[in-house]
Amino acid sequence: MSFEFGISKTMNRTYVHGYDPRENIRLQDQASTLVELLHSDTKYPPDSKVLEAGCGVGAQTVMLAQNSPGAYITSVDISESSIAEAKRRVEEAGCTNVVFRQGDIFDLPFGDEQFDHIFVCFVIEHLSNPIEALNCLKKFLKNGGTITVIEGDHGSTSFYPDSEEAHKAIRSLVELQKRAGGNANIGRELYPILNTVGFGSIRVSPRMVYVDSSKPHLVEGFIKKTFTAMIEGVRESALDAGMIDQPTFDKGIKDLYRTTEKDGVFGYTFFKAVAEKN
Amino acid sequence: MSFEFGISKTMNRTYVHGYDPRENIRLQDQASTLVELLHSDTKYPPDSKVLEAGCGVGAQTVMLAQNSPGAYITSVDISESSIAEAKRRVEEAGCTNVVFRQGDIFDLPFGDEQFDHIFVCFVIEHLSNPIEALNCLKKFLKNGGTITVIEGDHGSTSFYPDSEEAHKAIRSLVELQKRAGGNANIGRELYPILNTVGFGSIRVSPRMVYVDSSKPHLVEGFIKKTFTAMIEGVRESALDAGMIDQPTFDKGIKDLYRTTEKDGVFGYTFFKAVAEKN
Repeated sequence: MSFEFGISKTMNRTYVHGYDPRENIRLQDQASTLVELLHSDTKYPPDSKVLEAGCGVGAQTVMLAQNSPGAYITSVDISESSIAEAKRRVEEAGCTNVVFRQGDIFDLPFGDEQFDHIFVCFVIEHLSNPIEALNCLKKFLKNGGTITVIEGDHGSTSFYPDSEEAHKAIRSLVELQKRAGGNANIGRELYPILNTVGFGSIRVSPRMVYVDSSKPHLVEGFIKKTFTAMIEGVRESALDAGMIDQPTFDKGIKDLYRTTEKDGVFGYTFFKAVAEKN
Repeated sequence: MSFEFGISKTMNRTYVHGYDPRENIRLQDQASTLVELLHSDTKYPPDSKVLEAGCGVGAQTVMLAQNSPGAYITSVDISESSIAEAKRRVEEAGCTNVVFRQGDIFDLPFGDEQFDHIFVCFVIEHLSNPIEALNCLKKFLKNGGTITVIEGDHGSTSFYPDSEEAHKAIRSLVELQKRAGGNANIGRELYPILNTVGFGSIRVSPRMVYVDSSKPHLVEGFIKKTFTAMIEGVRESALDAGMIDQPTFDKGIKDLYRTTEKDGVFGYTFFKAVAEKN
């Protein structure tokens, strides 16, 4: 999903969704509809030191700070402008337990075992080397500390009425993200990735956003403003790259909107992993 | 999924998975690994009258009886031999609150508004006319009573490592079930179907079976013995029908087994709907 905030220097050049203000609004819309589903069970104890790696514009930072008011949160991102926006939002929410640092996830200015917990959300899908990135983060974590990784998985998208064109339009975003070095279907891979990095006690739980017309806020906030807007956002890039023809792409988008009608249904699965360093 | 037990007279001729004893064992394997996920929140009050429509070999009946010991359960199926097996299992479990009746879901010998609740699991995916079937059942339900419908959705299957051949093998089962008048992707449609039948307060919840190598009982019980065994079971029919070539099918099966290795991951989503007659 484009629940993904820039993190690596090399990503800046190829970041699929860009950093424009409309994208920020969409990310915010999405976080307010998904926050309960994804984050309500993330609570850190008082006095624990938490590193949020790749905070982006702070869509998750306010939730982290509010869910764990006694924890000390350090949020880092590669982008100065994203950090400025994140800072504004955290201040606006009245949170005082967050400090921000600009830095590259592969070269952060922290000491070994400096943090009790690490939180990484919508980040590693954009990295060509997610294992290396998590290895870099692991050394900042105390023994017995936890890492939480949350990612979407575009391949999990299903809907009614079904549409081959809509799947093709979605796959063109997956392919663009792949060409930029990322992996939009990475959610399902969290277990093997964390296992490879050497984390233990890995527990992965799928979080499906299920939407039918009994949930008008998710029809609007998730199907239209988050998911379909994200696919629409790559129209020019996908057509320019010759990945898909224009009538197919446009029919796919039309069919995604069709799922927002009274008899429509939409599902998308995020994966949340919590693992320990031991 | 082949969590599906014959129900209609017309189905007998075209039932995708057959009624052989190995199939029964597989259904039982599956129920013991999925029962908590699918059924733990189905509990009927003492003295309520519950109709289980399409009990098959009783894979769900024992759970229904044990979860609601004070309820009176009437379980029906079109197949006498399935009922005999269901009866044996219910007696073996020591349940005394179930009576069995043989009958066609479209022509059951009950009076109007005779039941407080109706339970239908892995049935309507096999019917060419699920809306008509649910309409027939609805008249037996009291006003204010609930109907619970549970179905799988093969289109929700995702796994790592991903494999186009495996998806093609799965789609050949979907196509076979379609030619037999059924719909193996019906899970996602429960909301619009129940809405069309005129039920109210429809609440659909997805139940994803997520499996990685930290869950060896599900690797064995779900990926191998339930899902992949089910796909393998249609090999001859799919090849005979010319839906898929033999190397592709066999590669698909091999790739499904590949997901049971240490770095493999597998996901499948069931949908559970509860709605009211009002």
